[in-house]
Amino acid sequence: MSSKRVILTGITPTGMPHLGNYLGAFKPALGYQNQAGVEALYFVADGHSLVKLWDPALRAQYIREVIATWLALGLDPQRVIFYRQSDVPEIFELAWILTSVTAKGLMNRAHAYKDQVAKNAETGETDMDHGITMGLFCYPILMSADILLFNAEQVPVGKDQIQHIEMARDIAGRFNHLYGETFCLPTALIDETTPILPGLDGRKMSKSYQNTIPLFVDSKQLRKLVMKIKTNSLMPGEPKDPEGCTLFAIYQSLATPAQVDSLRQAYQNGISWGEAKQLLFEFLDAQLQTPREKFAYYLNHPAEVEAILKEGAARARAKAAPFLNTIKQKAGFVL
Amino acid sequence: MSSKRVILTGITPTGMPHLGNYLGAFKPALGYQNQAGVEALYFVADGHSLVKLWDPALRAQYIREVIATWLALGLDPQRVIFYRQSDVPEIFELAWILTSVTAKGLMNRAHAYKDQVAKNAETGETDMDHGITMGLFCYPILMSADILLFNAEQVPVGKDQIQHIEMARDIAGRFNHLYGETFCLPTALIDETTPILPGLDGRKMSKSYQNTIPLFVDSKQLRKLVMKIKTNSLMPGEPKDPEGCTLFAIYQSLATPAQVDSLRQAYQNGISWGEAKQLLFEFLDAQLQTPREKFAYYLNHPAEVEAILKEGAARARAKAAPFLNTIKQKAGFVL
Repeated sequence: MSSKRVILTGITPTGMPHLGNYLGAFKPALGYQNQAGVEALYFVADGHSLVKLWDPALRAQYIREVIATWLALGLDPQRVIFYRQSDVPEIFELAWILTSVTAKGLMNRAHAYKDQVAKNAETGETDMDHGITMGLFCYPILMSADILLFNAEQVPVGKDQIQHIEMARDIAGRFNHLYGETFCLPTALIDETTPILPGLDGRKMSKSYQNTIPLFVDSKQLRKLVMKIKTNSLMPGEPKDPEGCTLFAIYQSLATPAQVDSLRQAYQNGISWGEAKQLLFEFLDAQLQTPREKFAYYLNHPAEVEAILKEGAARARAKAAPFLNTIKQKAGFVL
Repeated sequence: MSSKRVILTGITPTGMPHLGNYLGAFKPALGYQNQAGVEALYFVADGHSLVKLWDPALRAQYIREVIATWLALGLDPQRVIFYRQSDVPEIFELAWILTSVTAKGLMNRAHAYKDQVAKNAETGETDMDHGITMGLFCYPILMSADILLFNAEQVPVGKDQIQHIEMARDIAGRFNHLYGETFCLPTALIDETTPILPGLDGRKMSKSYQNTIPLFVDSKQLRKLVMKIKTNSLMPGEPKDPEGCTLFAIYQSLATPAQVDSLRQAYQNGISWGEAKQLLFEFLDAQLQTPREKFAYYLNHPAEVEAILKEGAARARAKAAPFLNTIKQKAGFVL
């Protein structure tokens, strides 16, 4: 194993990434890119996209967009290991080995599965597993393989993902118990400082609420979205409260402290919502200008992107393959 | 795809193969080895052994024994494709893809799973999934991947395995429906002519009843086992009924019709059980002499066996890898 601390982040392609994804996942993950003593691994979890997405053309588009997003936001493939999950067959080989040591009861308790069962109960379904696939039921095992194959000590995740890390610990512990010390037990790395970003309607920014600001839309579209942000009916000249204000929260999440103070002052001075929106639009448009150009560049240079990913997969597999051999040997496979 | 009819047989390493395994699995499978128009694939299902076996040393031993058994019984690695499941990562990659399209309800209905749930109910367990692993719950999906990756049209199986082939058909159909025609729907090839072989105690010969005659024990041990076969209390000189006689059934399963007629005559003439057992022992001992020597040879030449398996894996992967790419492309992966 490497003497560096391994930190791993995967992002599932489920649609064009938005500001909430940036602040909640990409940005904190990329913060580890240049940290001394850290080996950072980043991957595109295309295998996980099978769980909820059934349209092959959309899947291909989303995969390309997530890859281009990582690169556009400053991931440096020379400094870190950057790969596409499906390019590393060792992950899927390990997933089966881990499946064999996982108690079914553990999966029965997974939040995503239980939510679906609850929905079936609510709608009066007699079959509690109606519409539930084995993909939904088993994906915490694939996630465990993602993490354990690289012996990642720490996995930066949102609070909704803590259970998955606990499951990976549980599964790793079970393997270690049966076949001897093999895996380190990963821990969730929760970024308590990142606030939840509100979307256009004030609820959490989320694709499922259709209230997002996608990262890479053109200026015109970006302006249109910012103008849609829900505000209150206070008139120009009336002092406004930054607290609980969606506009302010979005600005605050990306601006410098000095910029934030200046906007707070403007709120007190009764800035109109139209002006405030224009200010936020111009700020976001400037911030996203370079990433937007890079994003377009990578989408338009698939061969260059493929070369980056092939190189990343080779480096990931150079770590994964010998460790998988160790794992298989411990479990009694003849190699 | 090959224009030949693909027939595939995998055997899970769960212990030294016995006469019942030979007649029920190895022999019928090897019957396809020299058939014109047939592409025969044979594999050692070492990944499946994880479902029920937790001892790594035993697993390694059983894997070696099943490999040596295939070769000892006449499998010709030049004529067929012979591989170890764990040497073909494409199987496990496909298993995840199939997992994502499998309804959980389908797995809920699997016999092996339901049997365990029934056992929990009988013993008064409140947790119906007590002691059940995800390996037990999911292995029909891995079996589907084994079959579908090679587009096997026919799978020779015992009647207890018919459900698994039906599940593979169901899963293949679901993938085809979602992503377009990809897999042929496999059918079970049931050998109606092979009778169920009784074991030493008259029940079906099965490792779980500890009533087996292992294929490769030495003459002394073989004689000891044959002498244990349960007979009735008829005395020498009294005519005996071949019907329902374990001794006779075992002899009949391997001897020529002329040899069988001759033993039937001897039964009528009142052969003593001691003589009949000696006759069966000598017959089996002679039949198993060459396979026993070959079995010992292959166990003692691991490097030669590894070379055979590496060659087989390379041939299996040469078929599997391009097909997996097709499958992934249809599902929308970017390659």
